[in-house]
Amino acid sequence: MIAAPPFFAAYQTLVNTELDRLIPADGTMVSRSMAYTVRAPSKRVRPVLTLLAAELCGGTSGPAITAAAVMELVHASSLILDDLPSMDDAPLRRGQKANHLEFGEAIAILAAFGLLNLAYGTVARTYEPVISVRLITILSDAIGGDGLIGGQATDLLATDQQISFETLERIHRGKTGALFSAAATAGAVVSGASADSIRSLSAYAKNLGLAFQIIDDLLDVEGDPRETGKAVREDLKKTTFVSFSGIQGARQLALELCQTADRALEPFGKRADRLRELSQFVAGRSW
Amino acid sequence: MIAAPPFFAAYQTLVNTELDRLIPADGTMVSRSMAYTVRAPSKRVRPVLTLLAAELCGGTSGPAITAAAVMELVHASSLILDDLPSMDDAPLRRGQKANHLEFGEAIAILAAFGLLNLAYGTVARTYEPVISVRLITILSDAIGGDGLIGGQATDLLATDQQISFETLERIHRGKTGALFSAAATAGAVVSGASADSIRSLSAYAKNLGLAFQIIDDLLDVEGDPRETGKAVREDLKKTTFVSFSGIQGARQLALELCQTADRALEPFGKRADRLRELSQFVAGRSW
Repeated sequence: MIAAPPFFAAYQTLVNTELDRLIPADGTMVSRSMAYTVRAPSKRVRPVLTLLAAELCGGTSGPAITAAAVMELVHASSLILDDLPSMDDAPLRRGQKANHLEFGEAIAILAAFGLLNLAYGTVARTYEPVISVRLITILSDAIGGDGLIGGQATDLLATDQQISFETLERIHRGKTGALFSAAATAGAVVSGASADSIRSLSAYAKNLGLAFQIIDDLLDVEGDPRETGKAVREDLKKTTFVSFSGIQGARQLALELCQTADRALEPFGKRADRLRELSQFVAGRSW
Repeated sequence: MIAAPPFFAAYQTLVNTELDRLIPADGTMVSRSMAYTVRAPSKRVRPVLTLLAAELCGGTSGPAITAAAVMELVHASSLILDDLPSMDDAPLRRGQKANHLEFGEAIAILAAFGLLNLAYGTVARTYEPVISVRLITILSDAIGGDGLIGGQATDLLATDQQISFETLERIHRGKTGALFSAAATAGAVVSGASADSIRSLSAYAKNLGLAFQIIDDLLDVEGDPRETGKAVREDLKKTTFVSFSGIQGARQLALELCQTADRALEPFGKRADRLRELSQFVAGRSW
């Protein structure tokens, strides 16, 4: 287990403060259900990626904080859905009962909708129109049929089925890679990055996201729920990178993906060192 | 029963053609589930409202067609959610099995998410940035805690409960009034309307939406499922405008709301006659 890079904690605090500001404090059941999953302990990897990308491309992460928090709103929304009885039927998330077990299924679904809706509304209210529209397009692509929703649907249809390695990879490029890529791209866009920089950061983040998912599969087999915050051995009905490649093979694959990710950072030289620390952390967090 | 105004059919065709263009034709289960509810027979009242508002404020409805279709995407998304087993558990919608009974609950939920996501992405890809951001803000307000999501949550929590008339009205201002208002406002914004015109149209649509909902309650008691496309007597567990005010009282209330709606059109003079025909149609469609 490699510890999180030292800069991580400060970024997590920034993200948490911004999330607190964005979640409605009106005390309604839906707002409390939204806050329940968003505020639960999380590494905040996606928003930290947004902040690091913004810093790399613009010298400062400040203006990207809202976009960073929006990535976490979308991610939390997808977690609530994934855990529903009709989907993965998972009891535990982020070290606490799944949202629908705490608030009931109907409120959990409305909270997930509310988070997605809040994400879009927040972008439109925060950034100047040209940037807003770019961020919303990036988000919409990452959430739709080639992203979170498509990945989750393919994943559900693959449960109890034999699937190819290519299908498995497509599932996780959708479920994890797409939002990782959107998170990095959003940070770059807020900082006015060039198309070349955006392409490099997107490639970095896509591969990092896939590595992150493989490590998740490893943690499902090897992990301690006190550390992962999720029930383990939940994936037995599913084809995972571990069931495909074995533990050693999956570790090797995650490492290679992190190396591929890092190669995409070469144009940035040493300025991208924090992103390299992030990929080392991701590659190392399982053993 | 008053027949739909003669101009209605042409607008419905325009909306249906635009919806066909927007729904992904990639053949995936989620896309087919999205299309299933969106393409099912519907009056398209919300998009027609967008087109009429755009025409009233800009002389032409052409540029508003995408915004109009987007209102229907959001509405269809909310219908899929409302019918879920954990919400109203409704078997029939738009004259066919509810989405989750045709595609299963997981795909239905993803389709509802997909429609909301498509709505936002479509706006960002279609209109110039300043207009896009205004439309997205309007949508986000109409969907969030003071709109669809808030109304649906209050409705769910009110099932089997004694509620006040004020709570009942708040539920339906959220569930129906907010998106009616957004639909009219969006048409006006696309046509570059003044703030005064937008306020008038929003007031018109809010009251029309509430009247529309009261008529829905009446149809649940009196209607024929072949005509409404929904199962009747579904609302027995709920407090409705009919259970509060009786059949005659609810009819009277709907009529008064349509009259209040029409009064908001006075600044437009005769140019708003088609909107007046729409409110006559809404007020008259139950008997």
